[in-house]
Amino acid sequence: MIYSQSVQALIEELGHLPGIGPKSAQRLAFHILRIPEPDARRLAAAIVDVKERTTWCTRCWNISDGPLCDFCLAPERDPTLLCVVEDPRDIVAVERTGGFSGRYHVLHGAIDPIGGIGPEQLRVKELLARLEPEGVTELIVCTNPNLEGEATAMYLARLIRPLGITVSRPASGLPVGGDLEYADEVTLGRALEGRRAMEA
Amino acid sequence: MIYSQSVQALIEELGHLPGIGPKSAQRLAFHILRIPEPDARRLAAAIVDVKERTTWCTRCWNISDGPLCDFCLAPERDPTLLCVVEDPRDIVAVERTGGFSGRYHVLHGAIDPIGGIGPEQLRVKELLARLEPEGVTELIVCTNPNLEGEATAMYLARLIRPLGITVSRPASGLPVGGDLEYADEVTLGRALEGRRAMEA
Repeated sequence: MIYSQSVQALIEELGHLPGIGPKSAQRLAFHILRIPEPDARRLAAAIVDVKERTTWCTRCWNISDGPLCDFCLAPERDPTLLCVVEDPRDIVAVERTGGFSGRYHVLHGAIDPIGGIGPEQLRVKELLARLEPEGVTELIVCTNPNLEGEATAMYLARLIRPLGITVSRPASGLPVGGDLEYADEVTLGRALEGRRAMEA
Repeated sequence: MIYSQSVQALIEELGHLPGIGPKSAQRLAFHILRIPEPDARRLAAAIVDVKERTTWCTRCWNISDGPLCDFCLAPERDPTLLCVVEDPRDIVAVERTGGFSGRYHVLHGAIDPIGGIGPEQLRVKELLARLEPEGVTELIVCTNPNLEGEATAMYLARLIRPLGITVSRPASGLPVGGDLEYADEVTLGRALEGRRAMEA
């Protein structure tokens, strides 16, 4: 024996979590062994609870407590403006800016030919189905500014522009508060390309 | 709202685990949202299970499925030889050597005055209570070779040597397979101090 069966089982289950290697799983399991039982039960209950209560919004595929998420239900959100993101967490990032009043659509990933992720693995079909019924006029493709995100944006632009819908992408450029000296050449190049005339 | 209540609750519970910051907790929570429900339930059940089934051995404070752990129950283990470790995981490390046939005692930590851990926070009282009834003749203090571990070893030696029990400490020295060039001076110094005559 190394550990008892229940400890071994817990280490194994924890090891399935992303970014948790065998050593971390062991450390977490021993932490759980040490904490008071109510704390451990609360963690277990939170896991079960999230699976029982949380589902995906059937319209935008954000996480949701019901068939439609809070953004899709909110009457004040502009249905003609749609922001496409890779992950529900990206919605939080966009919301934090306070500058977007439209609705969202979560793709649940980005196109990645090497990883075997094509448009059919993403919520693209569901996105297309929304455009006409909701009267979407502009699509802001807020996928990550990396290879996969750019490929996904390009793909969506080619697909959706012909429908007469404006497809836009957030500007690339220097991060506010950043240091020119430390900007990589691609970012600085994009920033220069996208330069804007200063007003007065 | 940022996330729904159940998601927020799960992020919070995961954030209590050691080494899991707010971003990791979010990542783990979203992973749990994505995995099939049976997998999530299995993880939750493993947490509850470990708390229900696993307890501490009442003799050596190793993790155990019953009042006494497998090592304390094994008749072939020599009760006169006791190996003192900081953590149940250290038992696995000692067992892996295949060179120890005695019993164990888990302190559950090491003396750390800065962290406010004194002997009374450790299973020292329980260790002292075992020495006479079990007829212990040698104590191998296998605490970590760091400041806290050394302080603990020193403390135990001063306490237990007067009882006529040999208190030993594993040798410090060069790791087998290591490189002399990369050895730190303290380790190399200890290795030279502890040099052993070669036998033909």
